[in-house]
Amino acid sequence: MSDIEQYRRSIDDIDKKIIELFQERMEVVTKVARYKKENKLPIYNGNREEQVIEKNVSRIEDDSLKPFAREFILSMMDISKKYQSVELSKDEVSSEYINEEKPFYVEKDLRLGYQGVNGSYSEEALLGFFGNKHKTSNYERFDDVFKALDKDEIDFGVLPIENSSTGAVKEVYDLLRKYGFFIVAEKCIKIEHHLLGIEGAKEEELREIYSHPQGFEQCSVYLNNLKDVKSIPYFNTAISAEHISKEGIKEKGAIASKRAADIFNLSIIKEEISNEEDNFTRFIIVGKNIINNASNNKISVVFAVENKAGALFNALKWFSVNNLNMIKIESRPIAKEPWKYFFYIDFEGNIKDIVVKDLLETFEKSSSYFKLLGVYRRELDVCN
Amino acid sequence: MSDIEQYRRSIDDIDKKIIELFQERMEVVTKVARYKKENKLPIYNGNREEQVIEKNVSRIEDDSLKPFAREFILSMMDISKKYQSVELSKDEVSSEYINEEKPFYVEKDLRLGYQGVNGSYSEEALLGFFGNKHKTSNYERFDDVFKALDKDEIDFGVLPIENSSTGAVKEVYDLLRKYGFFIVAEKCIKIEHHLLGIEGAKEEELREIYSHPQGFEQCSVYLNNLKDVKSIPYFNTAISAEHISKEGIKEKGAIASKRAADIFNLSIIKEEISNEEDNFTRFIIVGKNIINNASNNKISVVFAVENKAGALFNALKWFSVNNLNMIKIESRPIAKEPWKYFFYIDFEGNIKDIVVKDLLETFEKSSSYFKLLGVYRRELDVCN
Repeated sequence: MSDIEQYRRSIDDIDKKIIELFQERMEVVTKVARYKKENKLPIYNGNREEQVIEKNVSRIEDDSLKPFAREFILSMMDISKKYQSVELSKDEVSSEYINEEKPFYVEKDLRLGYQGVNGSYSEEALLGFFGNKHKTSNYERFDDVFKALDKDEIDFGVLPIENSSTGAVKEVYDLLRKYGFFIVAEKCIKIEHHLLGIEGAKEEELREIYSHPQGFEQCSVYLNNLKDVKSIPYFNTAISAEHISKEGIKEKGAIASKRAADIFNLSIIKEEISNEEDNFTRFIIVGKNIINNASNNKISVVFAVENKAGALFNALKWFSVNNLNMIKIESRPIAKEPWKYFFYIDFEGNIKDIVVKDLLETFEKSSSYFKLLGVYRRELDVCN
Repeated sequence: MSDIEQYRRSIDDIDKKIIELFQERMEVVTKVARYKKENKLPIYNGNREEQVIEKNVSRIEDDSLKPFAREFILSMMDISKKYQSVELSKDEVSSEYINEEKPFYVEKDLRLGYQGVNGSYSEEALLGFFGNKHKTSNYERFDDVFKALDKDEIDFGVLPIENSSTGAVKEVYDLLRKYGFFIVAEKCIKIEHHLLGIEGAKEEELREIYSHPQGFEQCSVYLNNLKDVKSIPYFNTAISAEHISKEGIKEKGAIASKRAADIFNLSIIKEEISNEEDNFTRFIIVGKNIINNASNNKISVVFAVENKAGALFNALKWFSVNNLNMIKIESRPIAKEPWKYFFYIDFEGNIKDIVVKDLLETFEKSSSYFKLLGVYRRELDVCN
């Protein structure tokens, strides 16, 4: 038998014993979970965990092995904790946070705000989610929508957070954190960009095209094939349509929606010029309070970690430990601390779940910055 | 003694035995590491790992415990592997990849490209890194710089990748992945935005200010306090300066650098109007080949994972397992697959290190998409 085979046999013998002990440990841990459940004690006990780790690390003789032993024990305890959580949540549901009233969006006479003008995709998202029975106000900038919420001029704001081909709307991420308001719902809209012009305008006669920079990005393939045409970045797609409508010159076009063409009396020169056939923008509905409901299944948080090796990984570990599915991670700079970041995470869950409550508490304790940004229902039907 | 104390004693007895076995396992694992080293065998053996996991999971009787046992064994093997790596890399250094020639940037007569015009921050970064002895070409769009590299019109391109207050330049992230070129260096520039006007222009008489949207974002605090002034988004800061210089109207201002003021013969109406005093942009130097050097200590990669729970976490685990420090994570949408993402990660290391080679191989095998984006030296002196 070769040396390596010999070693592998030893490892196998060791593993057999370890796995038996692991099984025993999990049995006792289940008993602890039951006991804690009956006595309404929290699963997580930081002090006790620290003690267990220290005691076991001190049992290791070789100093260079100690950090590995620490990681091993930590990982074993994480798995124990996850197992406990699963056992506990099998039959218990906390009633805290639950709000079983009728959905907030069916209330009458809400005051709603969005960025952009009549005919914008934001307005489309607002009407798609709330219907057209409410009072709506439009604002020039994203910040103005948050300010309006802050001053109680509106009950909810509708803001784009992410496009499926160009990515995050980073300004909205920053404002959400800055104002500390909450996502209460999401609404997805299919973006269909068309090339618009005044009546009689022709593709080959165009010299200037107006749109939001994201409009140009999303139609870059089509635009790159046009000759002698200047792309002029403008405030947003609908304002671009309004602008060329007012100017009334055949040489000026705009990239905007069909709705904008109708509103500003423009013709469609070329239909559907987006690079991707499936181009969606996800909007968030933002309010001043958390509105939880048993059917909510998505949570958004933002956090920062100490600037040291492994800190981000250690934070993300809690999602894995608690078996919670991360849907999205987005990073944004911390302006006053160059090259440090806020991490925005969307994950599946409801804050009434014990594992989720546990995760949020752990995060709050262990991060250098932490904010809950929203609890809502994941919209899958329309856009995915 | 209470029930819970009883349980804790049992757990402690079990832990004591487990930790002894862990110590034994690590001793054997060290022997395996030495054997592999002497016989030039790879550390990672996927088949053997699979066998060990399956054998041990099958030893568990309770089905509901099996997934937890799997995680436990996986984690123990990860720690073993990390320990092996550390033991191996203690005295061995691979000589592969090392390029000990003189640094590429001291070569003469390089052909260099950047986006923007004379007077732009990109040009400043280029001159700061390469000096002014080379032939430079400027291009209208980021994509044009990549195209020029592709056509061999230039040897290296200089492109902004990240600003310390406004975040990632997402288009450059996308293009880097799309073209498959490599980051060979980074250069950080302090951004000092000034309000420029033609001679005699005054702050209170301005009606329009031109700049790149990022210029507006980075000076939003100052701009929000101005009255009756329109912000007009323009191609970039230097072109904005050129534009108002050509127009020659006192009511038009631009946000740009001091260098742009000098080049386009403009006055500084108001100095340093950025929101943050410390505002930096990190530029990357992009070439068609990997240029490694023993002093390189930073690596960039991009990858995608299967769309299932825990997949991202499992990928990130490899950095922790190999004790590699993640510097930055950035996510970008996969355009053709709505709500799926590419993850861009910068981490510390040199591709000659065994742990890094190991990590890259593992990533390549286990990701649904993977590309090495660059190996370079982290610039800490100037901008951090």
